[in-house]
Amino acid sequence: MNILSNYPQITEEMNIVEATLLRSIKSKQPLVTEVTDQLVRSGGKRLRPLLTVLSAMVGEYDRKKIVPLAAAIEILHMATLIHDDIIDNAHLRRNSPTVQSKWGKDIAVFTGDYLFCKAFLLVSEFKDIENTKKLARAIRVVCEGEIQQYHHRYRTDISTIGYLKRIAAKTAILFSVSCYVGACEGNCSKSMKNALANFGMNMGMAFQITDDILDFTGEKALAGKPVSSDFIQGIYTLPIIYALRSKDYGERMKAYLSKTQYTHDDIAQILKFAFDSGGVAYARTLAEKYLAKAQRNLNALPEGPSREIMQDILDKLIGRKV
Amino acid sequence: MNILSNYPQITEEMNIVEATLLRSIKSKQPLVTEVTDQLVRSGGKRLRPLLTVLSAMVGEYDRKKIVPLAAAIEILHMATLIHDDIIDNAHLRRNSPTVQSKWGKDIAVFTGDYLFCKAFLLVSEFKDIENTKKLARAIRVVCEGEIQQYHHRYRTDISTIGYLKRIAAKTAILFSVSCYVGACEGNCSKSMKNALANFGMNMGMAFQITDDILDFTGEKALAGKPVSSDFIQGIYTLPIIYALRSKDYGERMKAYLSKTQYTHDDIAQILKFAFDSGGVAYARTLAEKYLAKAQRNLNALPEGPSREIMQDILDKLIGRKV
Repeated sequence: MNILSNYPQITEEMNIVEATLLRSIKSKQPLVTEVTDQLVRSGGKRLRPLLTVLSAMVGEYDRKKIVPLAAAIEILHMATLIHDDIIDNAHLRRNSPTVQSKWGKDIAVFTGDYLFCKAFLLVSEFKDIENTKKLARAIRVVCEGEIQQYHHRYRTDISTIGYLKRIAAKTAILFSVSCYVGACEGNCSKSMKNALANFGMNMGMAFQITDDILDFTGEKALAGKPVSSDFIQGIYTLPIIYALRSKDYGERMKAYLSKTQYTHDDIAQILKFAFDSGGVAYARTLAEKYLAKAQRNLNALPEGPSREIMQDILDKLIGRKV
Repeated sequence: MNILSNYPQITEEMNIVEATLLRSIKSKQPLVTEVTDQLVRSGGKRLRPLLTVLSAMVGEYDRKKIVPLAAAIEILHMATLIHDDIIDNAHLRRNSPTVQSKWGKDIAVFTGDYLFCKAFLLVSEFKDIENTKKLARAIRVVCEGEIQQYHHRYRTDISTIGYLKRIAAKTAILFSVSCYVGACEGNCSKSMKNALANFGMNMGMAFQITDDILDFTGEKALAGKPVSSDFIQGIYTLPIIYALRSKDYGERMKAYLSKTQYTHDDIAQILKFAFDSGGVAYARTLAEKYLAKAQRNLNALPEGPSREIMQDILDKLIGRKV
């Protein structure tokens, strides 16, 4: 994790989180271990557990409490990713085959469930039940968000508010909770807890909006290569939603989206509408608004490594993409 | 629930469990509530929560603690059923369309996850973290059992021990935990807790073995109608496993099972081998062995409604099927 290269102490903590992650998801069943091992080793930015560790470090850091909590959050995230891939029928994630493409949907369903249980078990090692509750609530909201998203596919009447609620549920809330539980376990003051929870929320919103923009501005999209865009699966993100509301582009966009199959030219046209209508620019504006909010939350934190790294996350991981 | 007709007090408790079940799984998302509502209303014997209530009544029954626990166990069970139906590609359960056949696999995956979270939330309302742990562990084992079962499909070298381990994991452990958590919350003595946990385990084993026998002796099988037998999906249960080990029938059974498609006659032949080899009789003997063990566990309990109803479960729900 490049962003940590100047922080050997935090790199070490994250290595311990990684080891805990690997150890915790081991199973007596060799196949289960094989599946979960590959999941862990296929990488990922570990942003959520990093946020937990950094937030706890704003207060009093206690490795024994924080490491299992951070690992549990990544395990929950992995569980939702496996189930997500089933729904998207995805074959690759981070250039590795997904669980379902390698072992089948069936193994994927129960591996996800297994990871849920493991995560809750890891968290319940604390005597404090509150963290279990917070995480269970967060994942419940993620599930509701995913169900909502799937249910509203192909609906062209989706509003910006609807979109924001959806990405809050499916992405931002887990970032927010990752910060919040770290802050709670670090015995941070109430105002620090709120600043960190809000930072996670706003950062998560910016993260998802910029990720959605990449469907339109990413290398693949610009090179005219087939994009695995959400809109092909009927999931409309901000640039499309904005174009649909546009007086000049709305009707044409709707007509293109309503096609049952998209040709290469159709996709190019949809991308063009998203740009020309100002949809992409609007999405950028919103992302920047959330980045600015996250920046304000960050400014409330005491100076130190946590704040510096969170700043780098904002600037280098998210801000650069906008 | 017929078995409770002479016990108005327990009927009332189970009605309260039912109401709690319905209330707990409500969601702000109308679609989620629609799905989960139908799940609850499509019925089921509610055997697991009944065992929790009855076990607690062996000690000191406290409705405030027991009802949410019993409801949580049924919610967890429902979550595993939804995910199970995805794997089996099942269209009907208890004569109602399954979640996946009505709303799609995608909704089914996340509804299951949502229910997991809800169940853990309900349990964590107690301040006692131990129940959360016990349930998370039980569900983890259920998942491992399901993964194992799926992975070992079509393997003709599966042993009786392998089969028993598999059904312990996927079925009996949740029965056992249902009894055990009830006994713990009811402050039962250690020997009562063990008797109840063992009762659940042995009853669960008998339950699953007799259920598996029905694939061979049930009305459909006897009438020569297409059975939705496990073996068609490569899941071999005791009568087949026994036949595969038989000197006289093993090779022929293997030959039939290895076909890629089964005709009506093939299925009839496989059923016949299961009977003629003594496989069905052997399964019955094992079921009776577990029933006898469960009976011994039951005899250790004090006389009263709990023991009487558990006796009825053994005699009427399971014993009758053997």
